Amino acid sequence: MADFSDLDGFRAALGALPELDATARDAAAERNGQLTKPPGALGRLEDIAQWYAGWRGDARPRIEAPQIIIFAGNHGVAARGVSAFPAEVTAQMVLNFEHGGAAINQLARAAGARLDVRALALDRPTEDFTQGPALLADDLVEALATGWDAVDPAADLLVVGEMGIANTTSAAALAAALLGGDAEHWTGQGTGVDGAEFANKISIVAEGVALHSGQGDGLETLRRLGGREIAAMAGAIARARALRIPVILDGFICGAAAACLAHTSPGAIDHCIAGHLSAEGGHGRLLNALDKAPLLALGLRLGEGSGAALAIHIVRAALECHSGMATFAEAGVSAG
Amino acid sequence: MADFSDLDGFRAALGALPELDATARDAAAERNGQLTKPPGALGRLEDIAQWYAGWRGDARPRIEAPQIIIFAGNHGVAARGVSAFPAEVTAQMVLNFEHGGAAINQLARAAGARLDVRALALDRPTEDFTQGPALLADDLVEALATGWDAVDPAADLLVVGEMGIANTTSAAALAAALLGGDAEHWTGQGTGVDGAEFANKISIVAEGVALHSGQGDGLETLRRLGGREIAAMAGAIARARALRIPVILDGFICGAAAACLAHTSPGAIDHCIAGHLSAEGGHGRLLNALDKAPLLALGLRLGEGSGAALAIHIVRAALECHSGMATFAEAGVSAG
Repeated sequence: MADFSDLDGFRAALGALPELDATARDAAAERNGQLTKPPGALGRLEDIAQWYAGWRGDARPRIEAPQIIIFAGNHGVAARGVSAFPAEVTAQMVLNFEHGGAAINQLARAAGARLDVRALALDRPTEDFTQGPALLADDLVEALATGWDAVDPAADLLVVGEMGIANTTSAAALAAALLGGDAEHWTGQGTGVDGAEFANKISIVAEGVALHSGQGDGLETLRRLGGREIAAMAGAIARARALRIPVILDGFICGAAAACLAHTSPGAIDHCIAGHLSAEGGHGRLLNALDKAPLLALGLRLGEGSGAALAIHIVRAALECHSGMATFAEAGVSAG
Repeated sequence: MADFSDLDGFRAALGALPELDATARDAAAERNGQLTKPPGALGRLEDIAQWYAGWRGDARPRIEAPQIIIFAGNHGVAARGVSAFPAEVTAQMVLNFEHGGAAINQLARAAGARLDVRALALDRPTEDFTQGPALLADDLVEALATGWDAVDPAADLLVVGEMGIANTTSAAALAAALLGGDAEHWTGQGTGVDGAEFANKISIVAEGVALHSGQGDGLETLRRLGGREIAAMAGAIARARALRIPVILDGFICGAAAACLAHTSPGAIDHCIAGHLSAEGGHGRLLNALDKAPLLALGLRLGEGSGAALAIHIVRAALECHSGMATFAEAGVSAG
């Protein structure tokens, strides 16, 4: 069960998260310098291996048990015509996840990852955030706890993904409220809106930001403009940190959840790496603001944790090289 | 055994390679439009799946048997001080590959790929190309045939990698001779040369280009400025096409091998995709010239097929999604 029963309890948990183990990271860096390759020749794989080693507190770790959790939620603002798909698709896609037919099912299997699905009160959409706060405090705490409790303590890498018709609208409003800038710079085409529908989406984001920005910290902003699945992602990301499980962030919505944590407690997402740059309009800007460089840039804009699930392969391969390669001495290879 | 016994025989084989099966590709595109995701939401994964389906002649394929082949060769120009490592490292690294200690061993295992290693006459380095042609025609044919014969007809995806001290020097000379431009625009730091050694490397590339450019087609340029492992890569890439096995290109040296084919027979590398953008100086320019957009850009500069081996995961995941996902009708999901 979650270690908190109200928002201040969650804030306290965020403030008490463990830090990277610099001793393990430094030992990993020393090992890296002895491996049979020119210095730096594995590029970002070398950085990833040392970052992961530091968070796991192990200079020569491997990835054996990645977990992917998909959170689903419904949004009142969907009634405003901001998505190319009707709101009932959220529940239909949850069934598709459970039956193994979605992209994330294939990607989880390919990555050797456990996949869990948590649908959050799909029959109770958030309030339309242009009319008032999206969530009550109790609902936010419940969603954070759902995410917190969904993380498997035995996992050694976490991906959180989402499904929720209209949630790019919510994520754009969160990003604009937390980071500033015009609604049009944060609003993307989501599942594929364009023309007048896209203009409508931008104006709805702007309305929500005007009503709710500057009203509190990242968690209060999450309550006002977010959604249950976004809050659950935030709860899971925080719990992973408490368990020293590194996290691969997915796309724009996942990034918005992470930004809510970072704007509540600086450093709260230091255990996170950006899995990919999505095609959703504001994602590059959001990653810049979070100071995260994406591992992949393949034009995905699906959500479901799909881009981060692909990045599991890269992170695991980095650790396979780091922990499995021979040193110059072991292999009898002349160092340069 | 190879289908050719001299260079003109190889040229004839290149001219007779099969083309993509447009019917299978179009059927894959039709299936793609029915899968449970917004149109285009899987980005480049969708393009990859259709490209792969076309080359395999199967609208719903999977990748079960990827093969990685590492070719090793020695270069006379290594005696000119163009590498940070001594020439004996080529043979030492071949032993490291055979004993499982190199990066590519870990990456092949992680990708579920068969790994083969072919050392080509390591005791007979090429001639120093600043003094004359690197290879005799018979030696080039033998190296092309080694590559041709190394491809497993049962493979369904091929990566070719290389090891050869000084082979970025050879690759830079090949690229400059085939594509034009100054030696300094094609010469990179390889295993890590800098300062005066880097300036020396550039001038050696320029000497070779001055002596050999404009003396024939891509294969004749390969004979004059290439090496046995580069020729073997070219032979393997061509054989893969004959067998309808798609190829993931690795870094700068692999790209130079591919360029030799493309400059002998236009379209000869249409079955190839670029696995990654390496950190080697001229690679981005080379990929532009080949009209190939890299899947990954992680700053690798190791060779050994390492970047392409990482990209196997992306290509396989693309096919898992394409061939494994449910359609809207199958899943009962409302289309947008």
